[in-house]
Amino acid sequence: MAVDLLVFGPHPDDLEIGLGGTLAKLKRNGAHVVMVVASIPKDFEVRMEEAKRGAEILGCELRLLLDGGPRRLEDVKTCDLVGLLDGVVKEYKPAAVLTHSNADFHNDHLLIYNACLPTQRLAPFDFFSYHPTNCRPVPIAFHPKAYVDVTDTIDAKMHAITAHKSQFGGRGLDTEMYREFAHLQGRMIGVPYAEGLDVMRLTLA
Amino acid sequence: MAVDLLVFGPHPDDLEIGLGGTLAKLKRNGAHVVMVVASIPKDFEVRMEEAKRGAEILGCELRLLLDGGPRRLEDVKTCDLVGLLDGVVKEYKPAAVLTHSNADFHNDHLLIYNACLPTQRLAPFDFFSYHPTNCRPVPIAFHPKAYVDVTDTIDAKMHAITAHKSQFGGRGLDTEMYREFAHLQGRMIGVPYAEGLDVMRLTLA
Amino acid sequence: MAVDLLVFGPHPDDLEIGLGGTLAKLKRNGAHVVMVVASIPKDFEVRMEEAKRGAEILGCELRLLLDGGPRRLEDVKTCDLVGLLDGVVKEYKPAAVLTHSNADFHNDHLLIYNACLPTQRLAPFDFFSYHPTNCRPVPIAFHPKAYVDVTDTIDAKMHAITAHKSQFGGRGLDTEMYREFAHLQGRMIGVPYAEGLDVMRLTLA
Amino acid sequence: MAVDLLVFGPHPDDLEIGLGGTLAKLKRNGAHVVMVVASIPKDFEVRMEEAKRGAEILGCELRLLLDGGPRRLEDVKTCDLVGLLDGVVKEYKPAAVLTHSNADFHNDHLLIYNACLPTQRLAPFDFFSYHPTNCRPVPIAFHPKAYVDVTDTIDAKMHAITAHKSQFGGRGLDTEMYREFAHLQGRMIGVPYAEGLDVMRLTLA
Amino acid sequence: MAVDLLVFGPHPDDLEIGLGGTLAKLKRNGAHVVMVVASIPKDFEVRMEEAKRGAEILGCELRLLLDGGPRRLEDVKTCDLVGLLDGVVKEYKPAAVLTHSNADFHNDHLLIYNACLPTQRLAPFDFFSYHPTNCRPVPIAFHPKAYVDVTDTIDAKMHAITAHKSQFGGRGLDTEMYREFAHLQGRMIGVPYAEGLDVMRLTLA
Amino acid sequence: MAVDLLVFGPHPDDLEIGLGGTLAKLKRNGAHVVMVVASIPKDFEVRMEEAKRGAEILGCELRLLLDGGPRRLEDVKTCDLVGLLDGVVKEYKPAAVLTHSNADFHNDHLLIYNACLPTQRLAPFDFFSYHPTNCRPVPIAFHPKAYVDVTDTIDAKMHAITAHKSQFGGRGLDTEMYREFAHLQGRMIGVPYAEGLDVMRLTLA
Repeated sequence: MAVDLLVFGPHPDDLEIGLGGTLAKLKRNGAHVVMVVASIPKDFEVRMEEAKRGAEILGCELRLLLDGGPRRLEDVKTCDLVGLLDGVVKEYKPAAVLTHSNADFHNDHLLIYNACLPTQRLAPFDFFSYHPTNCRPVPIAFHPKAYVDVTDTIDAKMHAITAHKSQFGGRGLDTEMYREFAHLQGRMIGVPYAEGLDVMRLTLA
Repeated sequence: MAVDLLVFGPHPDDLEIGLGGTLAKLKRNGAHVVMVVASIPKDFEVRMEEAKRGAEILGCELRLLLDGGPRRLEDVKTCDLVGLLDGVVKEYKPAAVLTHSNADFHNDHLLIYNACLPTQRLAPFDFFSYHPTNCRPVPIAFHPKAYVDVTDTIDAKMHAITAHKSQFGGRGLDTEMYREFAHLQGRMIGVPYAEGLDVMRLTLA
Repeated sequence: MAVDLLVFGPHPDDLEIGLGGTLAKLKRNGAHVVMVVASIPKDFEVRMEEAKRGAEILGCELRLLLDGGPRRLEDVKTCDLVGLLDGVVKEYKPAAVLTHSNADFHNDHLLIYNACLPTQRLAPFDFFSYHPTNCRPVPIAFHPKAYVDVTDTIDAKMHAITAHKSQFGGRGLDTEMYREFAHLQGRMIGVPYAEGLDVMRLTLA
Repeated sequence: MAVDLLVFGPHPDDLEIGLGGTLAKLKRNGAHVVMVVASIPKDFEVRMEEAKRGAEILGCELRLLLDGGPRRLEDVKTCDLVGLLDGVVKEYKPAAVLTHSNADFHNDHLLIYNACLPTQRLAPFDFFSYHPTNCRPVPIAFHPKAYVDVTDTIDAKMHAITAHKSQFGGRGLDTEMYREFAHLQGRMIGVPYAEGLDVMRLTLA
Repeated sequence: MAVDLLVFGPHPDDLEIGLGGTLAKLKRNGAHVVMVVASIPKDFEVRMEEAKRGAEILGCELRLLLDGGPRRLEDVKTCDLVGLLDGVVKEYKPAAVLTHSNADFHNDHLLIYNACLPTQRLAPFDFFSYHPTNCRPVPIAFHPKAYVDVTDTIDAKMHAITAHKSQFGGRGLDTEMYREFAHLQGRMIGVPYAEGLDVMRLTLA
Repeated sequence: MAVDLLVFGPHPDDLEIGLGGTLAKLKRNGAHVVMVVASIPKDFEVRMEEAKRGAEILGCELRLLLDGGPRRLEDVKTCDLVGLLDGVVKEYKPAAVLTHSNADFHNDHLLIYNACLPTQRLAPFDFFSYHPTNCRPVPIAFHPKAYVDVTDTIDAKMHAITAHKSQFGGRGLDTEMYREFAHLQGRMIGVPYAEGLDVMRLTLA
């Protein structure tokens, strides 16, 4: 099997926050998109349901990397985590891989970023990173170089984010900042809403 | 008129060295490519002929920004240079603009890079920079993020470079390093020859 | 005379865009704030009036560095420009100096930034830079480290920006992005609106 | 309880070396300062006594994060360490947090730095980092942006450092370099002695 | 004992790839060179034999840090790894230490780099890092500052690399890219082949 | 003629401040050292005498690039300045070139740095930059990688600096900070006094 887009997120909700609009758009455009959620650290059943609902809203295939129950990423040896990601990349033969960026400061997010880097040696797929994801705003030094117009899918993105009730509504956290941020990113390419990506390796033409 | 690619080079030969393979390939693929050479500092007739020959080999349209005779870029005020580049961008309405990068250390190359940056405000075109260009090897900190497979056009590139006889053969300089460098870049995406670009702004999907 | 805040802007409107909310707030808090506009490149009378109106709205003192008519910053030698800024700093003995940052790409903005740097040797004033200012959105790599809550003065800021009719309304340009951006900056410190500054030198305690 | 300053140090002596002058000064100025020492890897009783003595000299409250005996920071899971720091921040509600910087290369120092970063999401406190701390000089790329005049407390700082006899006198190590370094930092703001901090997030005005 | 050069490599083959030509050259010039291989994660006997053969070809002394059987670097605590490297540095009293750089993205390579940094505090030896080592090409941001002409030892380097049959020939991987890369590095100093190093600390004159 | 060391300084006193100890030491060790002072902006006779005196104390040969009277560097076109530096490099065939670094913020210092960069293409000489030079302390982000033990020549350095009476004693400026700074640099390699250089290109072995 060869998919178009393989995206790695540390936990449920990261992919919806980081690039939900992009995923929904590419899916609508006919791409085969696989969302790989690395682990669910606790509240397994609840968060698994939310992950499924989020993927369903975006229309993408979902896969849990460390499945079977609650798992913490830092309990996995780095060499084993790289091996797991290698396996997924070999299985799906993606045209493009997207992962968290190193501008993030959540340890699990950096573990995924770092373990994704060596997968580049397996094949010359396009390789991007998405904006650090936080439930609450903090200053972040992330500079997107590539933008995706998500005007038609910003509502799906917001819908998919709020599907993670245990993370937002359940804790009284506001999700509106994601829409505002997408609007400001949109200004960079002259559209109502956009998501920004950093480009690590890309084959043009 | 709306062109596909508008590329800015400080002097004749820079565009051939920096991205000759890319230009030839895109042209073969049907793109409308305009090569803008900013100035010819001396030996006007000789270098103008070489520029024409280089563009002809690559199959691209050539335009001299400061025409009519020998001109030095640093004799033009920055605000006037920005105005000239703005004018070219407004005239050609390019889908993508390529310019020198700021990893270069030739002052004229940096003048073009710096004057290109503000043109981004005119429209959300894709914006790339190409590898610093030197006639002799010097260590350079340039990290391409995007690669173009130029296997089919590496010979055209080499041919277009050597068309600048006054710069290479006439000074006893070897051009073989450009082929070697393209070969090493090619290894990054698994092809015989590639050229690398940095991505400054890009709209995906 | 010793002022609290001496702020340098390349042209009329830069200070309003970059830190209008901060200036208005500090003024309301009792600070003595001097806005130094470096030059007016053309439309002298119109832009001088707009600059006066902007400063009036913010409640700050205005000074034009290169006065008497239209002047272009790049027509001034760097050593002379440094001398002029040195003179202003010696005259006002500011507790803090604010200037454009080097993340900007307008040549005149960088000229002011570069000429401000050496003034640091004159006295250990606090030294900050404000966000690059553009009339139209472009991606910028500026990371504020210090934030000013401008919730009470965001309206004054917006009012002062639109006082520059020749730059915005007169060209059909929208100023709403400045409010949106201030709102997103505000989220970083948990207030409705904020402006962000980079810190170059600061004496605490 | 809401304290003014919450400072995190990996081991006893780090806080005295990194910002002892600042702590003593703020305390003298009436601030409520809490020094949190993360762990004591060995020689528990000796180093605990030295830590108490150091804090006493500076006049600050001391708290050992991993108490009850010798503990190594890297034996604590990152998510648990973040949880512990979160707890301390929630308990003390600090106006400002200071931590080690990422220019350090001691692994334990980086563990504290990395675990402090996420605490920013809890509240918009001011957030600084202090100079890497070494018992012996090594070249370090740390650029302070904020300076504290510690002329009146440099002696207290030196006294507090030498209270850690097991680390300095006991190993024949000279502490004079800390005074020399503070003197050179002082030159940057025109005072006899200063300490430098990097600014990560700061609310002004 | 005081050696001239102490080089640390995470696994067998890293030192041959990263600086085999330099090691062979310095050895031929009369230097005492010790190659420390940190660990062999699996296939212990096979890779130990290959490591011995590689060192023999280069003419250097070999030492396995974690010996006695297969070991994984990440199973060693950082403080213990630093202790092991400290011990080796104290034992060999090297004039120069070379290690992996932080531009690498293999976790084991970074573990060695990070654990080498603190050894700098033990003595003012010269300290360099070598190019990231990969079996397959990936884009890397490494900027050598120092070059070693390895024209006379490039063949020994290539020979020593291919001695690691289990890593290259055995997996059908091509080693020719190392020669090409050395050739391009050579151009930077005008010789047929060179290896590049980054300089972290160096005493001149 | 082939010299050992060719050092470029923008004005009289820069070379004494930046690397006077290194120059005196290398000279004592038998090297042929040429100090090129780029220009004297005013007080030509006075400063020319001071430059001669400084070079005499260090024991080095002096050359004024723009001679015959007061000249300002920014009155020379960049392409002409590069041509002048090219000429000097071709004439002296230096084994090593030292210049100002880009961490400096004096415009004339940056002009010299920028014009030196292209001379690298002429020959593979070793290429270093020295610490930014200021008459008064300002925070600077310069990271030396190479150190020269100047314990035996620190007095010559201090003597040579104070020979520039019009710049120091004549303006009541203290030069003691240069000695203090050299002392702190010395700590990095375990000697009483050192000067630090950045390494841009170096051939080892």
